[in-house]
Amino acid sequence: MEFKLVKLHTKLRLLNVLYRFLFTLCIASTSYATDPIDQRTADEARKLIDQGLESTIGFEVVKSLTTEVGPRLAGTKAEARARNWGVAKFKELGFSNIRIEPFSVDHWERRHEHVQILSPFPQNLVVSTLGGSISTPPGGIAGEIVSFPTLQSLKDAPLSGLEGKIVFVDEYMTRTQGGSGYGIAVRKRSGAANEAGKRGAVAALIRSVGTDHHRFAHTGQMTYEEGVRKVPVAALSAPDADQLQRALEIGSVRVKLDLHVEAKGRVESGNVIAEIPGKSDEIVLIGAHLDSWDLGTGAVDDGAGVGITVGAAKLILDLNKTPKRTIRVVMFGSEEVGLVGARAYVAKHKDSLINHMVGAESDFGAGKIWRFETNFAPEKLYLADAIHKILEPLGIGRGHNNASGGPDIGPMREQGVPAVTLKQNGWDYFDYHHTADDTLDKVDPSDIAQNVAAYAAFTWIVANLEDDFRPRDP
Amino acid sequence: MEFKLVKLHTKLRLLNVLYRFLFTLCIASTSYATDPIDQRTADEARKLIDQGLESTIGFEVVKSLTTEVGPRLAGTKAEARARNWGVAKFKELGFSNIRIEPFSVDHWERRHEHVQILSPFPQNLVVSTLGGSISTPPGGIAGEIVSFPTLQSLKDAPLSGLEGKIVFVDEYMTRTQGGSGYGIAVRKRSGAANEAGKRGAVAALIRSVGTDHHRFAHTGQMTYEEGVRKVPVAALSAPDADQLQRALEIGSVRVKLDLHVEAKGRVESGNVIAEIPGKSDEIVLIGAHLDSWDLGTGAVDDGAGVGITVGAAKLILDLNKTPKRTIRVVMFGSEEVGLVGARAYVAKHKDSLINHMVGAESDFGAGKIWRFETNFAPEKLYLADAIHKILEPLGIGRGHNNASGGPDIGPMREQGVPAVTLKQNGWDYFDYHHTADDTLDKVDPSDIAQNVAAYAAFTWIVANLEDDFRPRDP
Repeated sequence: MEFKLVKLHTKLRLLNVLYRFLFTLCIASTSYATDPIDQRTADEARKLIDQGLESTIGFEVVKSLTTEVGPRLAGTKAEARARNWGVAKFKELGFSNIRIEPFSVDHWERRHEHVQILSPFPQNLVVSTLGGSISTPPGGIAGEIVSFPTLQSLKDAPLSGLEGKIVFVDEYMTRTQGGSGYGIAVRKRSGAANEAGKRGAVAALIRSVGTDHHRFAHTGQMTYEEGVRKVPVAALSAPDADQLQRALEIGSVRVKLDLHVEAKGRVESGNVIAEIPGKSDEIVLIGAHLDSWDLGTGAVDDGAGVGITVGAAKLILDLNKTPKRTIRVVMFGSEEVGLVGARAYVAKHKDSLINHMVGAESDFGAGKIWRFETNFAPEKLYLADAIHKILEPLGIGRGHNNASGGPDIGPMREQGVPAVTLKQNGWDYFDYHHTADDTLDKVDPSDIAQNVAAYAAFTWIVANLEDDFRPRDP
Repeated sequence: MEFKLVKLHTKLRLLNVLYRFLFTLCIASTSYATDPIDQRTADEARKLIDQGLESTIGFEVVKSLTTEVGPRLAGTKAEARARNWGVAKFKELGFSNIRIEPFSVDHWERRHEHVQILSPFPQNLVVSTLGGSISTPPGGIAGEIVSFPTLQSLKDAPLSGLEGKIVFVDEYMTRTQGGSGYGIAVRKRSGAANEAGKRGAVAALIRSVGTDHHRFAHTGQMTYEEGVRKVPVAALSAPDADQLQRALEIGSVRVKLDLHVEAKGRVESGNVIAEIPGKSDEIVLIGAHLDSWDLGTGAVDDGAGVGITVGAAKLILDLNKTPKRTIRVVMFGSEEVGLVGARAYVAKHKDSLINHMVGAESDFGAGKIWRFETNFAPEKLYLADAIHKILEPLGIGRGHNNASGGPDIGPMREQGVPAVTLKQNGWDYFDYHHTADDTLDKVDPSDIAQNVAAYAAFTWIVANLEDDFRPRDP
């Protein structure tokens, strides 16, 4: 009995060894036959993921930027300090080819803003003048409120009849994980003043483009249409928009706006760039924007993105291996006021855009990445699938093939540069977006670590891939 | 078989009827023998609970006050408008003996406040000057920050060595359902400036007394000690206190404070009072405070309390029955600046305080009531148990016998008036307390309805009780 058992045991062990050998052989050959990511790169990418999840580098970079610079509005001295910070940080971390690529931008700064209900219930309202808005006349401007539930309802109104009035566009924004509510809600930011101006109104107010219910007004850029009479415009916090709505339910409401801004013409801004040089002049571009709005310290928008992409590149740097392609990290300047840095980048690098393998910007807050989106030639989607397999253990699903790549990737994407979005969970992004409440305490270090892990693995793979994402026969 | 079953069924039915009859008899006799609340009053109280839970009157009153008056700081024109609102609201609802009982209060209003880090990282900080603070000298005052983790650590410091410095007391507050963290944390509100002044410092900053992590500074009253050199003091929002803390970890920090307040001496304030006259001159007093801080619309503090107590009294009024005792509803003025209205009430009514059966103020936000606390003579606690039985179905537990009755009840409690606290869940109360974010959207109508139900039942019972809560042989 004993003897028989030992024999059986030996047989089973042999079978097991044989089975495992054949299985390994099978896996290896499959991998060799179909996986476009070579085994070494894949292993290194997985190692970067493990290191990223353990690393605090991303959070440390956000913390440093938001503490040591704080708010850094495009074109201000604070943004200039942020560029110096960027150069110093890149040097401290050991990057190569560090430089500032300067460009100019329109100056705009808020000086003071004061809005109050004059009658029937005198009280102050919390507002933020929208970026680009003109000032009210000295001493402010008063008028009766005419309310519109949506921008469309204002557009549908006759082109007269609002003379001397103050328009209030009370459109709400829908909260979604992917941020799809923003595209619709943000139209009123320029639309309210433009449509008010066309109809003779003297000023405009909007319900903030945001999803929170705290007493923070959300600022953001607005642009006057050519030839339209300019009127000043400000955003009310959600509780203040509610308050105005309730007052209007009772009767006619007169409001006074006293908004003072300063605009000094063209001033200097710039992109801060650093590299991990590769064996070729092909470029894998990751980045984020360095500027922020003036109200908060820009932790969520977009200090987080700076931390994530710089942190990811630093992990790669510490591999101490030369990638096939050059990894370029860009801190874009003056994003918030109209992608000015992104356009300057494309203008300066137009001849080498063909060498840009991919562009990916982290600019959707500090939430975990949940989807890998691409904008590749259809015949190159097998590469997306292969990269996604490596990222999947981070809780990242496979997304569509219409990735924007992030706002600052837009202009190069238009020029044919393939784009990737490592899409973050934006469920609470528009609670903080463009408010005074966008501060470091809203950033979760473990979420940043997941982002760093994903960016490091993704960037390393693309920097070492045989193939690229462009059409085979362009 | 059929016949037998029918017989059994009939027997069981008879037994059931007998059992129910005996049970009812038993309950009724028990109730008669030991319950100090007569059956009719108990039934009416239960009816008031049902009506309260269905009613929107409490929320409508908070909405009206916070919309039609808004912020209403003690001694301001806004508080005077609130008194007029109170008189009009009482009239509209059909109360009797409506009047304003005037008194005077020290005037204090904030004009502007601007605090910035000068070096090493220039940026603005979100602050609120504390009520009662003096202004900084014209043009502001600058100095190096000396940080203390607690008020106690500042008190432990030598009585010199802070000359020319700006003291920062970075003490945190603990979140609890009952608000016990407040009593400890609030000490720094007066303590920081007083201890800073004693030690030669030129100004003081504190981490806000609050539990939130948004960019709202919490204001609140501070008082200078006699003979101590006065220095200006302001509270930083929690994210700004964090920011200052991080900057201090890196090195020395210089800050500039520019705080401007106005104090015009004594001005008029008042308590707004209305009644449901009873058959005797004994008084059951419920109330809340009418004034608020200047930053928010005072929905949670204490519009909610006004809504709850006025709403409860209105339900009683609509019973259209004359209670044994007079029900008095008081909207106290100038609570926030030092219980000035409560003291004026006691001074004016000192001769009739002996007739005050009980005082109960609702001033702990807009959360559900979870505990019935009393301050009765020990031999009268059987009454507390009986009242509690009626309130229990609302999810209200039986609490201790050391109830404060609410801040404005304090002065009359000191004179022997029994107190009751219908203790609210204050878990998030100090997120909004004394901030700009204290607005109507923070008030849940269904929570207010539960409060109205409890106050209506409690008030009606006490107004019709045979016994009282004072010692049998005083």
